[in-house]
Amino acid sequence: MYVYICALLFSSLLLATSAQSKFEYEIKEFQVPLDHFSFLSNASFSIRYLYNESYADKSNPKSIFFYTGNEGDIEWFAKNSGFVWELAEKERAIVVFAEHRYYGKSLPFGSDTFNASKPEHLAYFTVEQTLEDYALLITFLRNGRQLPVVAFGGSYGGMLAAWFRIKYPHIVVGALAASAPILQFEGLTPCDIFNEITTSVFNTAYNANCSANIGKSWHAFETMAATDAGKKQLGDKFHLCEPIKNGDDLNQFMDYLEDVYANLAMSNYPYNTNFLAPLPANPVRQFCLYLKDLHADEADLVSSMASALAVYTNYSGSDPCVDYKNSNASSATVDSSGWEIQSCNQMVMPFCANSSNTMYRTSTWDLKKVSDKCYKKFQLTPKPFDIVLRYGGRDLVAASNIIFSNGLLDPWSGGGVLMSPNDRIHIIILPEGAHHLDLRQSNPMDPASVVDARQKEAAIIGQWISEFYRYL
Amino acid sequence: MYVYICALLFSSLLLATSAQSKFEYEIKEFQVPLDHFSFLSNASFSIRYLYNESYADKSNPKSIFFYTGNEGDIEWFAKNSGFVWELAEKERAIVVFAEHRYYGKSLPFGSDTFNASKPEHLAYFTVEQTLEDYALLITFLRNGRQLPVVAFGGSYGGMLAAWFRIKYPHIVVGALAASAPILQFEGLTPCDIFNEITTSVFNTAYNANCSANIGKSWHAFETMAATDAGKKQLGDKFHLCEPIKNGDDLNQFMDYLEDVYANLAMSNYPYNTNFLAPLPANPVRQFCLYLKDLHADEADLVSSMASALAVYTNYSGSDPCVDYKNSNASSATVDSSGWEIQSCNQMVMPFCANSSNTMYRTSTWDLKKVSDKCYKKFQLTPKPFDIVLRYGGRDLVAASNIIFSNGLLDPWSGGGVLMSPNDRIHIIILPEGAHHLDLRQSNPMDPASVVDARQKEAAIIGQWISEFYRYL
Repeated sequence: MYVYICALLFSSLLLATSAQSKFEYEIKEFQVPLDHFSFLSNASFSIRYLYNESYADKSNPKSIFFYTGNEGDIEWFAKNSGFVWELAEKERAIVVFAEHRYYGKSLPFGSDTFNASKPEHLAYFTVEQTLEDYALLITFLRNGRQLPVVAFGGSYGGMLAAWFRIKYPHIVVGALAASAPILQFEGLTPCDIFNEITTSVFNTAYNANCSANIGKSWHAFETMAATDAGKKQLGDKFHLCEPIKNGDDLNQFMDYLEDVYANLAMSNYPYNTNFLAPLPANPVRQFCLYLKDLHADEADLVSSMASALAVYTNYSGSDPCVDYKNSNASSATVDSSGWEIQSCNQMVMPFCANSSNTMYRTSTWDLKKVSDKCYKKFQLTPKPFDIVLRYGGRDLVAASNIIFSNGLLDPWSGGGVLMSPNDRIHIIILPEGAHHLDLRQSNPMDPASVVDARQKEAAIIGQWISEFYRYL
Repeated sequence: MYVYICALLFSSLLLATSAQSKFEYEIKEFQVPLDHFSFLSNASFSIRYLYNESYADKSNPKSIFFYTGNEGDIEWFAKNSGFVWELAEKERAIVVFAEHRYYGKSLPFGSDTFNASKPEHLAYFTVEQTLEDYALLITFLRNGRQLPVVAFGGSYGGMLAAWFRIKYPHIVVGALAASAPILQFEGLTPCDIFNEITTSVFNTAYNANCSANIGKSWHAFETMAATDAGKKQLGDKFHLCEPIKNGDDLNQFMDYLEDVYANLAMSNYPYNTNFLAPLPANPVRQFCLYLKDLHADEADLVSSMASALAVYTNYSGSDPCVDYKNSNASSATVDSSGWEIQSCNQMVMPFCANSSNTMYRTSTWDLKKVSDKCYKKFQLTPKPFDIVLRYGGRDLVAASNIIFSNGLLDPWSGGGVLMSPNDRIHIIILPEGAHHLDLRQSNPMDPASVVDARQKEAAIIGQWISEFYRYL
């Protein structure tokens, strides 16, 4: 199930960039303390941020829109969060996208940051240190001016935006937290909900045979892989880059498929997008077209699965081999190792599955196992309760001025905030939305629910800004 | 001016303990991480806490009253915060007093904690680390139960209580922050307000000649100390433990007097108390009785000052010498070096005075000088903007469920929150109150305003608890 943790990473990046020319910015640097919370040393380093004030009245800007960067190169997020730019134009706001420490070019120890022989370099790779970076950067950008700042973020960036507002309400007037699964932590959400939602997306995308076929496919793969000839057949049918030689390879292949299903569900947008691979509109439906009939024969099923997978792996038609052993590295702009580290310190998200009510293989959440793996790989001992202790888990009653938007097609919505604890927390549900669709730039194919969501978000954000000036 | 920083420390301890038998508790220990905010090491240590569940229904307690311990041994605070106990009895609450890390017996490195050759031992002596200690301890004490927790604190403890509610509203339903000068930081409050209020207290305690005499005394001391005979005379008149030999000694003596004036103002209670020395009721008035006539003759003035000072130094009649070089060490339960360290990392409170509108000598606030001194003594570089960056300074509009109580006789009220930003922040002003008088146990001599304040506080706290259960 570990793959799904990585899926969060990719999920933020599944965004078409059809009009990149509008995303113009200066790239700047800002010095931050390595450790905001001790007085052990005065070491510091630079984080990057992107800056655009072209929409604002430079001598008298009205507000700052601040994207709380998440797990990857900040330019990628900037180019794929069109709504921030569109709304900034309307509100005449300064646009800032801040890069998360330890990602992109914001590396505390430069090229030595992830040196495996220096695990102490990872010690300051936390949510709290990152939020402090952002608090300092905003204070610097405000430069003493009374200027409302709105936080924006999608996926983990949305979690950061929400937590930023919760902890620093004097610094940001509010936050748009799009598809932010802040409840995807121990004790808050059943660990199987992610896979249940994914199953449901595949269930309803075309017909229920799709998920039933997937559910049966695991046994079919095992049957086929029981012989050497079958192993070769599997490799050939799926155009695998590396052959399946043993049980470990087979498991890795099946893990890869589970990852693909999650990614397909998250990127189940109503128009073409370009993510790990180019994808058609409504990709789950396209995938399921190949699985519309219930297959009784396992070999037939495997063949149909291979055809279906090509929707994900070969929509461009260039027919690459399927790199199932290295699926997370297919985007050059993404630093998947970073997220793996965070999932080994604070972002410990439990996932599991039950084969009786999902299309997945049964798997359990085993913190001990995760913990041992984390220690072995990074010398990190996960603190799975840090986040709930600090940000309150489901107890958000004292929070205010946060929009939690969630698409019901998005597996991450299971860990999202879907009920409002008070009238200052706004819940927006997009029945036709995949992962933070609302944060993307507008598109003629947008369903009514996302057009409506963006209008509501714009109105609420406008209100926060007005209120700031009213009470000034 | 440095002495005033230390004054905050003492100010919390000026409390009579006429009925100590009621303050019964178990002393327990709780293991906390040394550093909550990095993954550098798994080092941990124990903080102490005091625990009393005698008022509560043990099988089904209704709430926890949690005192956020401040700069000193926690037993001292427990025995001197009678209101917490009285209200706990009424509300049938569990009472907990938590000891602040680096104070009392809660030392991260044991007897080696303050070893000057190991300045790295001081690295985790911060507000944020302390609040995390308390958050973890409460989570442990709740033990999974839905149980409202109310934070209490006076002086720096009140600051912690307020900040705790601001940052951890999911852990405490509200906070009583008594005489908590959370605005006594750079850029928030004029640095001379503390001394102006002290002057005003001396001005009005008997008649205006009192502060006028004090204002003239500095020149009188200098005149007298200009000769060796005069120096000796000064030492004799004031019963100084160590003679005044030079200008440095004279300055130290005058610094000491300024400290005494602040302490007298803070401890200007309507009944006898026992602080650094036993004090009579309304000690400022008693002090000023000796200065009711305006002295034209400087030698006369010095004599009257010496008589007045005895109100502070010799109320018990045992006639000890005045240890003006070591005034902060007179209480065995207070660790004044701890506060000095905190004032060198985060608790950087600017103080200054203007002789034209106060009874003090003119002095300026010089961060560079403070900073150099801190580095020299502790190898610490103060971060004077940490607190405002994190806790919002005057911007408390998003905060809720905090009672800020301030006595107008208290010099610290100048840095207190005296205006409410919203209807969920309660401001209580005690016109006749010195430093957190309301937190003390009830006394027949209590003025009406403190009786009324405690009633209001009890009602608001009761409401927070009721609301918790209503929305459960």
